[in-house]
Amino acid sequence: MIIAKTVREVREQVAEWRREGLSVGLVPTMGYLHEGHASLVDRARAMCDRVVASDFVNPTQFAPNEDLEAYPRDFEHDCNLLEEHGCDMVFYPSVEEMYVPNAATYVEIQDEMPKQLCGKTRPIHFRGVCTVVSKLFNIVQPDRAFFGQKDAQQLAVIRRMVRELSYGIEIVGCPIVRESDGLAKSSRNTYLSPEERTAALVLSKAVFRGEELVGSGVVDAKRVVDEMTALISAEPLARIDYVSAVDGVTMQPVEVITDGTLVAMAVYIGKTRLIDNFIAGGLK
Amino acid sequence: MIIAKTVREVREQVAEWRREGLSVGLVPTMGYLHEGHASLVDRARAMCDRVVASDFVNPTQFAPNEDLEAYPRDFEHDCNLLEEHGCDMVFYPSVEEMYVPNAATYVEIQDEMPKQLCGKTRPIHFRGVCTVVSKLFNIVQPDRAFFGQKDAQQLAVIRRMVRELSYGIEIVGCPIVRESDGLAKSSRNTYLSPEERTAALVLSKAVFRGEELVGSGVVDAKRVVDEMTALISAEPLARIDYVSAVDGVTMQPVEVITDGTLVAMAVYIGKTRLIDNFIAGGLK
Repeated sequence: MIIAKTVREVREQVAEWRREGLSVGLVPTMGYLHEGHASLVDRARAMCDRVVASDFVNPTQFAPNEDLEAYPRDFEHDCNLLEEHGCDMVFYPSVEEMYVPNAATYVEIQDEMPKQLCGKTRPIHFRGVCTVVSKLFNIVQPDRAFFGQKDAQQLAVIRRMVRELSYGIEIVGCPIVRESDGLAKSSRNTYLSPEERTAALVLSKAVFRGEELVGSGVVDAKRVVDEMTALISAEPLARIDYVSAVDGVTMQPVEVITDGTLVAMAVYIGKTRLIDNFIAGGLK
Repeated sequence: MIIAKTVREVREQVAEWRREGLSVGLVPTMGYLHEGHASLVDRARAMCDRVVASDFVNPTQFAPNEDLEAYPRDFEHDCNLLEEHGCDMVFYPSVEEMYVPNAATYVEIQDEMPKQLCGKTRPIHFRGVCTVVSKLFNIVQPDRAFFGQKDAQQLAVIRRMVRELSYGIEIVGCPIVRESDGLAKSSRNTYLSPEERTAALVLSKAVFRGEELVGSGVVDAKRVVDEMTALISAEPLARIDYVSAVDGVTMQPVEVITDGTLVAMAVYIGKTRLIDNFIAGGLK
């Protein structure tokens, strides 16, 4: 596997693949990789001739009060996982390689969409995500890019950015990967104490309960959200940021659950903010 | 010359050229082409295997009070000029082809730079320019793109956007092309009455006077700007928007003129807003 630390190395390698007529898939990550990321690499491996993963903790999507410094990193472990899953190149740039001093060019959706759900507590988050993903797209120029459904709002934001900025890139959404007890895989799970790790199961329990209600024919969004909220509220270590049912494309709240409705939550377990969700009728 | 009205046609044609190993140059225009645009096509022709021009009056760079509706259009004339200069493909999309309903994804430099000079009276202008140029870059994926020095702030903004969004595209700036009496070529010159056309010469006269002063060793920006301002103010049909000496990269005002300093102006002649400029030491 090629380890590229500079934009130039990535461009030159991808150009060579292009000259050979090979298709390229991109898996953008912030590192500290787990089986969720591995599933994205597997999917890219199956759909593209060459697979590039990026491993970059992007500062512009963290607010000053967030966990940029604490965010877990283990590049050696990441390389092993990526190589095992057949990744051809990992792009592992420094912050200086990605951002010139005083950089202020942003890609931003300037309406209500990025202010919903996670955007309420993280107002600059999706501006940072759109900007860095746009840069990665411009550096790698992939045919396809792979994102997990766990970050469902991010997936919807990226799909919209690609459409509205006319990127010729197919965005492939991949299902949530869970621990055997149900907890959605996340690099941030490493923050949890053993007690918190147990308490964190309320997220997936609420997701499964919501899916069960919708599967049994309940379409009243308030009823589903209320029941999920009650389940989470019963856990003393949990503090709810939001539990919401929204349109899967616009992220606007809905009253009636239909195919494509996103039912999403963010919950603090102690100081750790975790997210989970399901999409009625499954991910399209 | 190929006339492409859809994004798909452009992508397919460029992909074919890419497979043949050919380089591609892009000349973004708003149509109503003149010798200034022709010089960009000539330069692209000399530097690239294939030349694509876009011909699109971009609504997102006009404010509601500006001249979007009145902006002159003549596609047949544009095609003749482009063909004469060896352009291989013109991209001539509808507004609907370029913007989906409720599009709100923008590329924007979010600091003081786009608020200087033309940005003072045109606060959303450079957001629209960056967004549409970014879309054109994503559609055509050119090796080089060609912009005129007449729109000097635009050229600086695009150079910065390309650097900060990691586009692998070389931006080539091309000198101002003038009428024989000095007036900078502009599609908006067509708005001028015969009387205004004569009055409009104060812009180029002021530019030439400024260049002369700087050439003779005057480095005091205030003195150069004041003398240019006095020259323009003597014309009854002229109303100055700005005359400024700024750093050619950051667009911040300077007190001392050095190589690379941009001395730029916007002047209303009747209702028509015209721009002109010179760069101390010439365009780099």
